Amino acid sequence: MSFSEFDLIRTYFSHATGNRGDVLLGIGDDCALLNPPAGRCLAISIDTLVEGRHFLPEVDPAALGHKALAVNLSDLAAMGAEPAWVTLAITLPTVDEVWLRAFVDGFAQLAAAHDVQLVGGDTTRGPLSITVQVHGFVDPALALRRSGGRAGDRLFVSGTVGDAALALQRLRDNAAHGTEDACLLARLDRPTPRVALGRVLAGRANAAIDVSDGLAADLRHICEASGVGARVDLSRLPVSPAVAAACDRGDWHFALAGGDDYELLFSVGADQVDAVLAACGAAGEPVQEIGSLVDEEGIALVYPDGRVSKEIPDGFDHFRT
Amino acid sequence: MSFSEFDLIRTYFSHATGNRGDVLLGIGDDCALLNPPAGRCLAISIDTLVEGRHFLPEVDPAALGHKALAVNLSDLAAMGAEPAWVTLAITLPTVDEVWLRAFVDGFAQLAAAHDVQLVGGDTTRGPLSITVQVHGFVDPALALRRSGGRAGDRLFVSGTVGDAALALQRLRDNAAHGTEDACLLARLDRPTPRVALGRVLAGRANAAIDVSDGLAADLRHICEASGVGARVDLSRLPVSPAVAAACDRGDWHFALAGGDDYELLFSVGADQVDAVLAACGAAGEPVQEIGSLVDEEGIALVYPDGRVSKEIPDGFDHFRT
Repeated sequence: MSFSEFDLIRTYFSHATGNRGDVLLGIGDDCALLNPPAGRCLAISIDTLVEGRHFLPEVDPAALGHKALAVNLSDLAAMGAEPAWVTLAITLPTVDEVWLRAFVDGFAQLAAAHDVQLVGGDTTRGPLSITVQVHGFVDPALALRRSGGRAGDRLFVSGTVGDAALALQRLRDNAAHGTEDACLLARLDRPTPRVALGRVLAGRANAAIDVSDGLAADLRHICEASGVGARVDLSRLPVSPAVAAACDRGDWHFALAGGDDYELLFSVGADQVDAVLAACGAAGEPVQEIGSLVDEEGIALVYPDGRVSKEIPDGFDHFRT
Repeated sequence: MSFSEFDLIRTYFSHATGNRGDVLLGIGDDCALLNPPAGRCLAISIDTLVEGRHFLPEVDPAALGHKALAVNLSDLAAMGAEPAWVTLAITLPTVDEVWLRAFVDGFAQLAAAHDVQLVGGDTTRGPLSITVQVHGFVDPALALRRSGGRAGDRLFVSGTVGDAALALQRLRDNAAHGTEDACLLARLDRPTPRVALGRVLAGRANAAIDVSDGLAADLRHICEASGVGARVDLSRLPVSPAVAAACDRGDWHFALAGGDDYELLFSVGADQVDAVLAACGAAGEPVQEIGSLVDEEGIALVYPDGRVSKEIPDGFDHFRT
């Protein structure tokens, strides 16, 4: 870790987040020294956001700071893990202190909300790019894996799907102006990682994933890892009015293939459904049943008119698009 | 973590490294699940290499893969930690399978040599950039910190210093041709992380840092963190014949301010010197005493002609240069 360079970020950051007792040594040495809790395992995930690929150059830096952490916290949520520590490697074309302070503010506010401490990082000069690694804890027996789905499981998703993709489309069309667009943009720019929901589901759901590539693509990941198929009742998809209007026009792309939602998609054994719904209700986490896992390979989409199709739109994959 | 994209790297990587028993779940889910050992703490470090900033566009991809991991292992070495797991976030302008396979080979060979397992990562498209995070274990009571130096400590450095900076200079001058240059280039392109030395020093040295910014700059980090000064006898610096020739011409820049050496700079209490030298000798790790830590602030350089100066060349700092 490069010390003097990263001081810049540490200075902005230190006012915003507390000190965790399990951080023996934070920023400022060759390594951070951390004390994981006994009895739980460490869950880690790393993600990179690149300008022009994952965000537009004109994005609000505070929103970008939020999102860079949120997409990683979402991976912890999808395992049912409790967030603890984060590292941040940021490459900047120039040092714009106003921009950087806003970025760190957005990042630090979300970190503080989840009691996450920044424990290390690196700053380099180059084309704008942000890599974040999160570290959390989970009882390995309760961790949510993609591979735990079983035929007969009922399939659920949290929140609503498709808003972020529709917001991006409307931004590109220069059509984002009203209150509804502000709500869609908030979903694109400041996604909510479903950390509390993930912890509710740990030990209760059979399989889970966060919806980052699109509902269909991420469902395919669960199906492939679990060796099952799925049947999705499209009339039950939880969508905002704007996305519902698109679906009504026959454009299911946003709801099915829109990435960047960061909702949780999960499957629950039939005998656990009541307990899961009660726990989600008690935690104030809205979830919607949308179908089931089945023995038959592939994903069958049941359209509102009763038509069934296995043709699903592709999700977001940097190297395929 | 993006699954399908990273498959590319996993495919190339999986033949090259073994499976560690402490990896409960590796690549392929939202998070990796890891089992840190009881009684030791986790040491982590993250570093980014950017094309044109940290390496030349024409660099051998296998060497780049080696170096991306080596600079991070060097941070573990500087804490006295045992390497265990690594994550890799790589941004590529295009997918050149020949290039990527060579990169992964270089990375994986060094990983295998240190029993390090790749447990997660991300691939994105954009300007070439590589971020690596390493994870190791160390007894917190034995960990080497920058802040442990005491006035009276004797100061040591491993290997030789200045080779990488001289190699880069000769590359830029188009003057790198002979056998000597091949040796210098190997020091620049394939640095050796001093992991075994770090573990020998753990609990024996008072302070340590790896020489990534340059000997003087990194010594300054130890001095600032420890609240001491230092006195360095330049006639004792361990240098290769090529760097010695530069010093003889009065150009101490390479030896004192050349970054990218990845040697360990460490201080040892006077009563521990014999034990440290014996342990280093037994481990086959060459180290050289170069001075001492002192009460007086600043770094005093004692030149071979007896002149003493506190003017030291600046090290490498992306945001200062």
